[in-house]
Amino acid sequence: MRSFNPPKRTLLGPGPSDIYPQVLQALSRPTIGHLDPLFIGMMDELKSLLKYAFQTENEFTIAISAPGSAGMEACFVNLIEPGEKVIVCRNGVFGERMRQNVERCGGIAVVVDDEWGTPVSATKLASAVAEHPDAVAVAFVHAETSTGALSDAQALSKIAKEQDMLVIVDAVTSLGGVPLLVDEWQLDAVYSGSQKCLSCTPGLSPLTFSEKALAKIESRTHPVQSWFLDQSLVLGYWSGAGKRAYHHTAPVNSLYALHESLLLLKEEGLQQAWQRHADAHQILKQGLSELGIQFVVDEQYRLPQLNAIYIPEGVDDGAVRQRLLNEYNLEIGAGLGDLAGKAWRIGLMGYGARKENVALCLQALKEVL
Amino acid sequence: MRSFNPPKRTLLGPGPSDIYPQVLQALSRPTIGHLDPLFIGMMDELKSLLKYAFQTENEFTIAISAPGSAGMEACFVNLIEPGEKVIVCRNGVFGERMRQNVERCGGIAVVVDDEWGTPVSATKLASAVAEHPDAVAVAFVHAETSTGALSDAQALSKIAKEQDMLVIVDAVTSLGGVPLLVDEWQLDAVYSGSQKCLSCTPGLSPLTFSEKALAKIESRTHPVQSWFLDQSLVLGYWSGAGKRAYHHTAPVNSLYALHESLLLLKEEGLQQAWQRHADAHQILKQGLSELGIQFVVDEQYRLPQLNAIYIPEGVDDGAVRQRLLNEYNLEIGAGLGDLAGKAWRIGLMGYGARKENVALCLQALKEVL
Repeated sequence: MRSFNPPKRTLLGPGPSDIYPQVLQALSRPTIGHLDPLFIGMMDELKSLLKYAFQTENEFTIAISAPGSAGMEACFVNLIEPGEKVIVCRNGVFGERMRQNVERCGGIAVVVDDEWGTPVSATKLASAVAEHPDAVAVAFVHAETSTGALSDAQALSKIAKEQDMLVIVDAVTSLGGVPLLVDEWQLDAVYSGSQKCLSCTPGLSPLTFSEKALAKIESRTHPVQSWFLDQSLVLGYWSGAGKRAYHHTAPVNSLYALHESLLLLKEEGLQQAWQRHADAHQILKQGLSELGIQFVVDEQYRLPQLNAIYIPEGVDDGAVRQRLLNEYNLEIGAGLGDLAGKAWRIGLMGYGARKENVALCLQALKEVL
Repeated sequence: MRSFNPPKRTLLGPGPSDIYPQVLQALSRPTIGHLDPLFIGMMDELKSLLKYAFQTENEFTIAISAPGSAGMEACFVNLIEPGEKVIVCRNGVFGERMRQNVERCGGIAVVVDDEWGTPVSATKLASAVAEHPDAVAVAFVHAETSTGALSDAQALSKIAKEQDMLVIVDAVTSLGGVPLLVDEWQLDAVYSGSQKCLSCTPGLSPLTFSEKALAKIESRTHPVQSWFLDQSLVLGYWSGAGKRAYHHTAPVNSLYALHESLLLLKEEGLQQAWQRHADAHQILKQGLSELGIQFVVDEQYRLPQLNAIYIPEGVDDGAVRQRLLNEYNLEIGAGLGDLAGKAWRIGLMGYGARKENVALCLQALKEVL
């Protein structure tokens, strides 16, 4: 057995996305203690950079020391108590995962279903909210990674807010790729992942809670079922003017990487990053259309950063992806859930959303198909 | 705001420990997909290296994508069902954390208390087991990071096994630093951390489950309360001859680093690594004795890799640690829990357990005190 030396791939799947070289550099800087004053200072900067990315003033804006699915779980276990009702919008794999989370923490999930590949329907949500005024929260996925559909988070939030419900949002694939305005849209609990449009290494989950979310946590009558994800404990480490309390050992180097990737996002500017994703998508769309390939999602709801396309008739799914990987060092994603075997997912996320990647992808597909 | 450039510290606290330079190199290798066949191959090697480190043939031997405290939680949420009784041995911070975990997953914790700084008493455990034959598991900390005391895991396991109870062990600080023989000692669920004697970056938790532990999971009547830590789901990603099922996006680069650190452990050999820790400890002990500094733990139960020592009378805890950090770039650990303000913790873990580190530590302490 030897050191593992991975090849240099172009990562155009659903994540991990292509990593900025500067982020890989940051990752390998010398590890220092997780309570070192210099590290605490870095964390303060990281919080401020995360606030920028989320467009929020929420004081509770941190990164969970685990992947996005732990970020999802952190929202539900902290905000929902046994017996409480949550309206969960389900239009793909991650809405279904939200439902499972609600039930595993003893909540009651009211599911609002939409077709895979379509956005969450505001009309259906409004009916569910009217029918279940006792629900404490509405949960939905902003950008469904399994289908490439973008939902109107602002409109959905407005419906929930009319009944004073908490709004829990999966922004794993949206953060940094399309507009996400946490404060303006009044979103209460929003989690993301490091490995999508932030182009950081996988393993961290940015998370922000509004004052209303924090108040809900403070009013709990049952302890949070997870010790690791209990944010009232985590807060003692991420916050406080003076001494920080040990909760768990932070993933020091991964946090260096996240700091660097957020710095790059800030230097570029959110608007510019959104535009870059949109531009890359347009070029891809044009090229795919010339190849006669169809999108899963209607044009107006398409995520620029996650392009789900139907596998052309008679084409061997696995064989094509294998050739792209082996011959071109190019990764595109397989279909997930209902779309497995039927669709591919081409991610143009973060550092991946560049002309040279789109060109490689289009030419390689042309040659292989 | 700029890129974060940490100084090069010598990390002799309770972890993170000094990282092998080769591990930092591995960390920054190009990210590839978490379902890339080459990555799956690396994971298979990683499992085999973890089996070596744990000295087990357990097929379920993986790394949790989160720190040691998530590894702890993974054991309890998977193995314990609501209403089940667990005997928890508590002789420091981490035994208490185990108790909280048991209660948060609806179990009943029977606590066996021992003084901080002493090992878990086999006699007390035997009484508790006799008194509670209906308990399904015994849980204890092998190497208490908060006090530096080593417990006799083999003897404690034997007591539990006489009543056919599961044995859950915290090996966060022991793995790689002192003998830990999972199969020979019949331990059923053992978790560790990447950032202690493996000298890898923090953020991962090696975990192994015996056949008996897996059978307990299979016989569950309640779903595991955590979706993220549900090992029956995680197994689909870490195992299986053919296709691996997506559960969450693995922390790709961190797993490169763990692979590298375990390779270094295997190349050195477990026996040699244990001996190196013991040797470094002897030199430290000799030097501290010349400085008139007392250990918290009696000689026979001392962990070579985690030396808890009393802060000399009249010495300012914070000021000394701050000078060591600022003037010598040397980190030693503060006391935790009951020992806060009373003790320091000097870690000689993994790559940190070297003569030059001990020499630096002794000389710096001499100059500062």
